[in-house]
Formats: sequence, structure tokens, C-alpha cells
Amino acid sequence: MKIAFDEAVRRVALALTAAGASEAQAASTAAALVRAQAQGLGSHGLSRVAQYASHLRHGRVDGRAVPRIAREHGAALLVDACDGFCFPACELAVERAMQLARNFGVSFVGVTNSHHAGVLVDHLRPAAREGLIGLGFANSPAAMPAAGGRHAIFGTNPVAAIFPRRDAEPIMIDLALSQTARGKIAAAAKKGEPIPPGWALDAAGNPTTDAKAAMQGSMLPLGGAKGAMLALVVEVLVTALTGARIGSEADSFFEEAGNRPRIGQAFLLIDPRALAGREVYDERIEALIAEMLADDGVRLAGARRMALEREALRYGVEWGLQGA
Amino acid sequence: MKIAFDEAVRRVALALTAAGASEAQAASTAAALVRAQAQGLGSHGLSRVAQYASHLRHGRVDGRAVPRIAREHGAALLVDACDGFCFPACELAVERAMQLARNFGVSFVGVTNSHHAGVLVDHLRPAAREGLIGLGFANSPAAMPAAGGRHAIFGTNPVAAIFPRRDAEPIMIDLALSQTARGKIAAAAKKGEPIPPGWALDAAGNPTTDAKAAMQGSMLPLGGAKGAMLALVVEVLVTALTGARIGSEADSFFEEAGNRPRIGQAFLLIDPRALAGREVYDERIEALIAEMLADDGVRLAGARRMALEREALRYGVEWGLQGA
Repeated sequence: MKIAFDEAVRRVALALTAAGASEAQAASTAAALVRAQAQGLGSHGLSRVAQYASHLRHGRVDGRAVPRIAREHGAALLVDACDGFCFPACELAVERAMQLARNFGVSFVGVTNSHHAGVLVDHLRPAAREGLIGLGFANSPAAMPAAGGRHAIFGTNPVAAIFPRRDAEPIMIDLALSQTARGKIAAAAKKGEPIPPGWALDAAGNPTTDAKAAMQGSMLPLGGAKGAMLALVVEVLVTALTGARIGSEADSFFEEAGNRPRIGQAFLLIDPRALAGREVYDERIEALIAEMLADDGVRLAGARRMALEREALRYGVEWGLQGA
Repeated sequence: MKIAFDEAVRRVALALTAAGASEAQAASTAAALVRAQAQGLGSHGLSRVAQYASHLRHGRVDGRAVPRIAREHGAALLVDACDGFCFPACELAVERAMQLARNFGVSFVGVTNSHHAGVLVDHLRPAAREGLIGLGFANSPAAMPAAGGRHAIFGTNPVAAIFPRRDAEPIMIDLALSQTARGKIAAAAKKGEPIPPGWALDAAGNPTTDAKAAMQGSMLPLGGAKGAMLALVVEVLVTALTGARIGSEADSFFEEAGNRPRIGQAFLLIDPRALAGREVYDERIEALIAEMLADDGVRLAGARRMALEREALRYGVEWGLQGA
């Protein structure tokens, strides 16, 4: 059954306040989850409501937290999510970072003591609406080993980017640095099917094509050692600069009990007007896109999500909450 | 035969000035090439001297260029390499970006009208010596297709990162976004051996395990579509923000004739003191490294290169120039 987008947000917010979230935490978080659902990103959408509510009830997230600017120096900023959901903290972070990027041409903001990043690129959408480009980084509970390692240290550590266009929707990139999604391994395990080499290690840290063994082990970074290096870069950016926990210090989101994850996010905003200028930027990005679209098989990143979201805003969101 | 590091630099600079480079262009470029060789990175070391000299002679690089700051706004900076080698331009860029990062906590600098980036992470080493973290990005002549595409658009687009440590050498990460190095495909082609799937496309844009066909086609990004997205991010950062050419507009470095590549580089510097502070940074990065080294198989990125460089500074560099 479909219900209106705003009505879905209202219902999710109610479920979160019932579990102990403040109005502000619930409103921001509910909007983000429904937006994810609307974009067809179910794994970051309504399926998370029960998990987030459980985290509230088990004290893994502080539903009364009020995020605050912990430090500001020039064009650099540190926001403390204060153990709340990431969404209100990232909102505050990106909003202030937008002002700084307009003033200084570039800004960098780290978010500490945070929680699950949700759809990372969505945090950057307000910046793109004002003509800023943005990059996003986040860590998550340990899921992948370092290059050459056998035990999980890094999260799947997503990277996001948004590039505004003059007369079109922005290019939106959002990807985890794992070779594949955990959901695909879980699906193979359920069906009793093998997984390709390069996806996962078993619990002992050996490469495996057995999906069930992989579920007990760790996921491999994309492209092997290079992907592990990229995951390290993200891990440092969001922890060492912010004071947040590294992946191996945060308990899995998929357990009810566990610590407050206190992981990190970071965002870099750049104003094209501060470098070669907006006209050059527009010409270059359209030249690049034209070259890409000259290949039949190429689709622009983010276009499908945006089309689904537009449809959902018009015709509603498929409604269904499990166990919230 | 080994010769002293400085003597190697002097000889390479002579070869470049003989081909038309100014003293300044030659000195900076020679130092970078010998530094690469000293680190065991032969493909970016002395083997490039003949290529660079040929580019000078064929007008593909302006040996008399004097790089300049084209624009500065707050903490953002644009440097014009003016068709010279990248090294003096990147030196100017990073030097000024270091001042900006100290003032503003973060800085971003783009370099346009540039040439081959060399060992990307090496440009960032002065920043790490002053306690700044750095990221680097560069494009290169077209070598890889977009996600789902059949023809090469992006370069292998390296990404670099440097993370200073209190009482140890910095972590240095430097990787091209291709699944493998072109040299490995060339080696397989020479031996008549096949290459693994996922490395390359043939000239028609179809996946191939035939190394010879791959040499006529394009290289695949690491991890498939995700790597292609990362290559797109790098391409936008170094072209749209700077006005530099996209990979498909720059002729191959491996041809004598061709255009001035006018590609781009970009660097992001962040001062940990502007966010959670240097003490927090040091504690976090050492916690992360300890966790990584708890795995037997893990080696710290950059450590081997640095050891080789130290040895070369002490005992000399293996000398040999082909056709310079």
C-alpha cells in the first residue's frame, strides 16, 4: 500500500519518538529514512526503523542528544553528534560547512560520536543545490580487513560525491568500498549458492567462495589491496581528525546490545567559483558527461534514484514497517 | 653501476636542459624522477627521462614554462602549470596550500595545463613534514571506460594520501584506480600469456583475457563499476574545478607526437589541529595502526618505498638512462 511521502515521514518519526527519540532527532532521521526508501534504497530505508528504534531502547543511541559545533577554525569544523543519530548532526555540519565554503572556497567538517551514516550522498544534497561540489566519507563497524590482513578492522566505509550541473540534476555517487554488498552474500547463503572469489574471507581469514562461511567472516574491499588502502584513507579521515571510533571499536549495528558506536563522518565542500569559475566548471562537466553518454551502456550516477524519488513524492511511498 | 643521488639528479637535469627545459623546470623534474627511482618505482623514474626529453623536443611540454598562481580565494587556489612539467607547478601549489591550511585548517589547490603527475604522493611529502594530512588526485590520458562503457575516457587517475605520525614516517598511499598496472598486461602480452578477467577490454570494448587484445583496448577500473565511479570523481575534481583537459582530450604520453596534454592535479591539505587536535589525531592513528599490525600479513603503506629511498640516499642510485 502506498502512502504520501510526508505521511510516511510522520509515521516513522512517531515510531522513533515512541522508542525515546526527541522530536528533533526523530524528524531528521525519519525524513532521511523515507528519502532512502523513496530512492529505492530499501536497505537504508524503512527496514532500518526497527533497528534504530531498538538502538534507542537499548541505549546504543541517545535519542535526546543535541548535536553541537565542538570546534571551528577557519574553514575547518568539528561537529559532535553527542551519541545521537547521525542525521541531525550531519545536517548541522553541512549547513555550517556551506557557509564556510562560500566564504573560503573550500571547507571540511568532521562529525564525531555519531551513528549509522544512512545514504551518505543525501547529506550533501543541500550543498549541491547551492552550486557547491561535495565529497562525503563515513566509517562503520568493522567488516573488512586491511591489505594482507585476516581480521576485520575497517567498516565498508562509503565514499560519496555530488557534482551540481547548471540545467540538470547533480551527478550523485555513493558507494561502499567493499567488493560487494553484504546483502548479496546473505542472499547466496540463503539459497545455498557459492559466491565469486574476491568477495569475502571466512572466520579464520582465508578466502572463501562458501557464502555461509563468508557470513561468519569478513568482506573484502573492492579490487583487493587497493580497495583496502582506500578504506584506510576513509578510516583516518573520519576518526583521526574527529576523535571518532575506528570500525573495530564499534559493535555491529545488527546486534541489539552493544556499545554506542561513536563512529565518524566527514564532508568536504568546494565552491567551483573559487577556482576556475562556474562557467569553466559547467563547460568541463558537460564535456565529460557528453563523452560518457556517447557510450550506449553508460548511465549517469544518481539518475535512477532521483527519478524514483520524484515518483515517490508524487505518488507516495510503499508502506511497510517490520517490528518497529 | 650506482651513483650518488645528487649526481643522478644533476645528470637527469642535464638531459632535460639539453632537450630544451629551463634550469627550474629541469631541476624540479629531475629530483622527482630520481626520487621515484630511489623508491623502487622504476616506471616513474629514470625510464621517464627519455619520454620527457622527447616531449620537450616535440613541443608536447613547454620547457620554459613558469608556473603561476592563477587565482586565490580564501583557502582555495588554482595554479597554472602553463604547459610545463607538473613538478614545479605542484611544488608551488603545495607550498602555498600549506600556508593556507595552517591559516584556515584546510586548503584545496588545483593545478591546470599540466603534464604527467609522476609519483603523486611525493608532492604531498612537504605537507606531512609540517604535520598536515594530504590527499592528491590526478588524471591522465584516457585509459579506462566509464561504468558500463566500451571506450576509454578516464585516465588511470591515481589517488594519493599522506598521514603524518608523531614518531614515525608518515603513512603514504598512492594507487591508480585501474584494476592492474598496464605494465602487467604488457608483460603478459610479451610472454603470450592470458590475463585474468576483469583487467581489460579489447579494442571493440568487449571483456578479454587476451593480453595482446587488451593492449589495443582499454584497462578496467578496480572493482568494476565502483572503481569507474571513483575515477569519475577524480576526473571532475582535477578538470571541472581547474579547467584542465579530460583524459579523452589528452594524447597518450607514450607517443612522441601529440598535443600538450594540459591535464590536471589537485591536492587537499588538512591540519589536524583545526579539528579534534593533534593529540587526538596521534592517539587515533596509532590505535588504528596497532590494530592493523596485529595481523601478521599487514605492512604499512609506504614503508618499503621509504626504506629503499633511505638506502639510495646513502649508497646511491642504480644508474642507467635509455635513449635520453
